[in-house]
Amino acid sequence: MAGQRAQAVVALGGGHGLHASLTALRILVDDLTVDELTAVVTVADNGGSSGRLRGEFGVLPPGDLRMALAALCGDDEWGDTWARVLQHRFEGEGEMRGHVVGNLLIVGLWELLGDHVDALDWVGRLLGAKGRVLPMAMTPMDITAEVRADDGDPDRLTTVRGQVEVATTEGVIASIALEPPDPEVSPAVLTAIEEADWAVLGPGSWFTSVIPHLLVPQLREALGSTAARLIVVLNLAEQQGETHGFGPADHLAVLAEHAPDLGVHTVLADRESVGDHLDELRATVNAVGAELVLDDIAMADGSHRHDPELLAMAYARIMQST
Amino acid sequence: MAGQRAQAVVALGGGHGLHASLTALRILVDDLTVDELTAVVTVADNGGSSGRLRGEFGVLPPGDLRMALAALCGDDEWGDTWARVLQHRFEGEGEMRGHVVGNLLIVGLWELLGDHVDALDWVGRLLGAKGRVLPMAMTPMDITAEVRADDGDPDRLTTVRGQVEVATTEGVIASIALEPPDPEVSPAVLTAIEEADWAVLGPGSWFTSVIPHLLVPQLREALGSTAARLIVVLNLAEQQGETHGFGPADHLAVLAEHAPDLGVHTVLADRESVGDHLDELRATVNAVGAELVLDDIAMADGSHRHDPELLAMAYARIMQST
Repeated sequence: MAGQRAQAVVALGGGHGLHASLTALRILVDDLTVDELTAVVTVADNGGSSGRLRGEFGVLPPGDLRMALAALCGDDEWGDTWARVLQHRFEGEGEMRGHVVGNLLIVGLWELLGDHVDALDWVGRLLGAKGRVLPMAMTPMDITAEVRADDGDPDRLTTVRGQVEVATTEGVIASIALEPPDPEVSPAVLTAIEEADWAVLGPGSWFTSVIPHLLVPQLREALGSTAARLIVVLNLAEQQGETHGFGPADHLAVLAEHAPDLGVHTVLADRESVGDHLDELRATVNAVGAELVLDDIAMADGSHRHDPELLAMAYARIMQST
Repeated sequence: MAGQRAQAVVALGGGHGLHASLTALRILVDDLTVDELTAVVTVADNGGSSGRLRGEFGVLPPGDLRMALAALCGDDEWGDTWARVLQHRFEGEGEMRGHVVGNLLIVGLWELLGDHVDALDWVGRLLGAKGRVLPMAMTPMDITAEVRADDGDPDRLTTVRGQVEVATTEGVIASIALEPPDPEVSPAVLTAIEEADWAVLGPGSWFTSVIPHLLVPQLREALGSTAARLIVVLNLAEQQGETHGFGPADHLAVLAEHAPDLGVHTVLADRESVGDHLDELRATVNAVGAELVLDDIAMADGSHRHDPELLAMAYARIMQST
């Protein structure tokens, strides 16, 4: 990126979507397009290893934080090996089955150091991480959804509680909310958003990893007052359960419904995935006052996952075009 | 140690005794008295976190290996913090209760890398360890003891099986044995013994952490053929259970009974702990052809534990006197 100032980027999300986005942004750290990279990660998981640890120790669910850290690992043998160790999941039939080594390490650090952010920074240093990983909030969160039965009375809503339950609901999600509604946010997160040139939201599980950030009042205010330009990265396909039946425009529409005042700079979508939904998507993008960028960012294997290298090139083009 | 060549040292043992010995030897690495330090650690534990992991995954019990690694950690904030993380034990009432973070990390590395020694070297690099930690054998071991009831027929022996069971037996231990009797030993262990200037055996739980090394045929042969001089460090007191009623001479006598051909160069004992058992101890030391060194090596708090700094000075005096 000769002649251009390197950019400070905040990436918001969770799960595999954030992992792909961070893997892409790490490439831009390596080629000096990005010089400050911060991940802000959902802490609402209540299932699997994370849910068990959250239940046992009352800590933040560590899984999405661990996955984000692994995505940012140094690209030498040291970083690669420790990332694989952190991601290692125990199998077998015993009490450790399903637990992930990095989750246990992070919880141990939290207990020992008594400081969520400091502990995550220690794991980052272990990995030689190319950026910093921070939790969305300082307390474990629960997602609740108002859900409309697929085949019942369209006015009758039921409340579904918990990330796993929301992600796998058979109904249609009308809206989501967080408990507690106004959690404490780390000052490090607010500073990173304030000082960023770009904020990247998505891709990922839309109702359970992407929209939750916009429901945290302190995060929404920080995104509203920063000079950072917001890129929303759309998913490549609907997700069975939470976004069943969603096209690209629907993703953007529900996001805008949950955060009507959010200023979106760019909406990034995969050209082929949009297909003949283009007019509908363009109308929705215009309605939120954003610019639509279509690019080829999907894996070639048809898996509906983003290809980190293609995503990196798309991010670089957006950041260099303004 | 001006003008003298730095020494290569192998320390054999397990548990808290080996931890104290390694903490002492680490001091000698720092002051350049020792330039190669290798710990050879018992792998017969069947209790606690180690026993649970051994039972669940069929791996070596990691606890004594973890404790040895922690003893050798670098003395900066990095080494100190990771050593404390590795030693952190989960509390509470849930499924993780009693598990130790470092044990889980080591088992994860074993599963991932498929090589016991390589995995322990990775943990050593994480800690900036001042020496190498190796397992006594490449397969999990069980200790069995022939035990005489304290108040019954002196000729009637019963067999007690398992490290925990032997360590806490209420009878008098007549002898111990290992299962399997001839385990595979890592070539790295044999090379370290062959190239050492000194081998240090003990202190520690005598029947369950110290004598077991002498029952592994490949280790006994390596100790017999090396030019390394063997220092046996006696415990400061009897240990309720396995060495109930033992004086200093009894410790040495049962060790000699289990390994009659073992060449002992020096027996190191705490002056005050020996007290009026001196004549008896001296006779036993003479009988095994060794030299007795009395020194002040106990903690000042009366806890019957070795003081690592005093132990370091005692080791240095022995190594420099020959």
